[in-house]
Amino acid sequence: MKLVRYGKRGDETPGILDDEGRIRDLSGHVDDIAGCVLEPAGLAKLAKINPAKLPLAPEGQRLGAPVAGAGKILCIGLNYKMHASETGAEVPSEPLLFQKAVSAINGPYDDIVIPRTSTKTDWEVELGVVIGAPAKYVSEEEALSHVAGYLILNDVSERDFQKNRAGQFTKGKSCDTFCPIGPWLVTADEIADPQNLTLRTLVNGEVRQNGHSSDMLHPVAKLISYLSQFMSLLPGDIIASGTPDGVGAGMKPPQFLKAGDEIVMSIDGLGEQRARLVADR
Amino acid sequence: MKLVRYGKRGDETPGILDDEGRIRDLSGHVDDIAGCVLEPAGLAKLAKINPAKLPLAPEGQRLGAPVAGAGKILCIGLNYKMHASETGAEVPSEPLLFQKAVSAINGPYDDIVIPRTSTKTDWEVELGVVIGAPAKYVSEEEALSHVAGYLILNDVSERDFQKNRAGQFTKGKSCDTFCPIGPWLVTADEIADPQNLTLRTLVNGEVRQNGHSSDMLHPVAKLISYLSQFMSLLPGDIIASGTPDGVGAGMKPPQFLKAGDEIVMSIDGLGEQRARLVADR
Repeated sequence: MKLVRYGKRGDETPGILDDEGRIRDLSGHVDDIAGCVLEPAGLAKLAKINPAKLPLAPEGQRLGAPVAGAGKILCIGLNYKMHASETGAEVPSEPLLFQKAVSAINGPYDDIVIPRTSTKTDWEVELGVVIGAPAKYVSEEEALSHVAGYLILNDVSERDFQKNRAGQFTKGKSCDTFCPIGPWLVTADEIADPQNLTLRTLVNGEVRQNGHSSDMLHPVAKLISYLSQFMSLLPGDIIASGTPDGVGAGMKPPQFLKAGDEIVMSIDGLGEQRARLVADR
Repeated sequence: MKLVRYGKRGDETPGILDDEGRIRDLSGHVDDIAGCVLEPAGLAKLAKINPAKLPLAPEGQRLGAPVAGAGKILCIGLNYKMHASETGAEVPSEPLLFQKAVSAINGPYDDIVIPRTSTKTDWEVELGVVIGAPAKYVSEEEALSHVAGYLILNDVSERDFQKNRAGQFTKGKSCDTFCPIGPWLVTADEIADPQNLTLRTLVNGEVRQNGHSSDMLHPVAKLISYLSQFMSLLPGDIIASGTPDGVGAGMKPPQFLKAGDEIVMSIDGLGEQRARLVADR
């Protein structure tokens, strides 16, 4: 299933794509794409619905973030060797964890707002993993059964805030609009192998990132198991599994985003997101 | 006002203390202590209610976290000079920010669970600041008008996870039960000056922390203004404003928590929280 949320920001309606890629209204069946709807029993219920029998959503609707109610966004730093190299960092001995504020979540086609004092706003295409069944102390073997689905996540990063403003990455990762997700939440049954996906970023039409999830140092199953040793992963929580090389900070000379730029990101099977950069007036 | 939430975890009822310190049931007026209830108009409505006319809550109820729906917990590291000294860290040039997962939130008298592989679970009493009116790019002068209220927050920390497990503090800060808050959310009108409060921690009856909020390197108004330059602060968001010296890691030799220990924390005007440490079976 490809689940979506459409309508005005903060007032989105749950929807599902039909066989022809049209949005159908799911609001007669669930209040939102959130919480227990994402658990195995909730998704099984949705899977029994024939989308063709649901009302069509009005045309031309904004797509919102396809998941609501995320409690936390757990981000893995330096999970691709060549990205670690381009940033000049050593590969960490175990997954490096930081958090992105949930208030940064943005729709897949919404503008990305460059903060007023930003000089180094950068892109990072990532495979986003959305938790379904709660996970605590789970093994790698059982880890993927806790996944509701996958989505494209742009881990937008302000490199100066991240690195030069008194330590800890979160400051450069949590600005409003810095976490576009979607367009769809693609349920896990449609992704045969999360380690066999190409991830791409185009900036103003030029290819900047062209990576493959087989290059993750710590694959998705490992990340879920690892994180669940520290804390409970709950339905709707999102894991940002790290970015491949090709970010702006790694270019020679470094290149950062400015108002008017356009970013297009895609991952096999997960669709494409597209954002325009705007200044914070 | 002293606002509380009482009842079983995940199913708490909103309440308010009356003049005699008894809990009165607020559920006839608000669904929860969360979201727009915390905004100035929401609190003004609550202030018009005479608690003595509300039903008394049943006796012997568990107290839950006094705020629900926190989108993020923004923690300030090293905000007291003597705490920076005891950890051997340099005082950062501007507020050091990290996040604590909201899934760590715990009631004020609930057990604190020591994670299975933990060897260095430590305490940190902090003044918790709960946001009321949304704040973005606010000045220090207007910052305190965005505060709904204050509470005691124990920023429980696993020092090995925090420091020796591949960088970034959040891993040692986000374990389940690692964020007891309460007992009450004390509305801002009852705290004349957030920089004039004594903070205390007792472990097994011995005083470990005895600090004063006047020693903060960056006072609350500065923190709100500073953080709001990076991201929106929203109703229910919590700022953990840093801990004074006297943590276990700073003792000679260092001393950490073990199952059976009891922590009591208090802050002037904000009451007292009390937790027993238990092992994660």
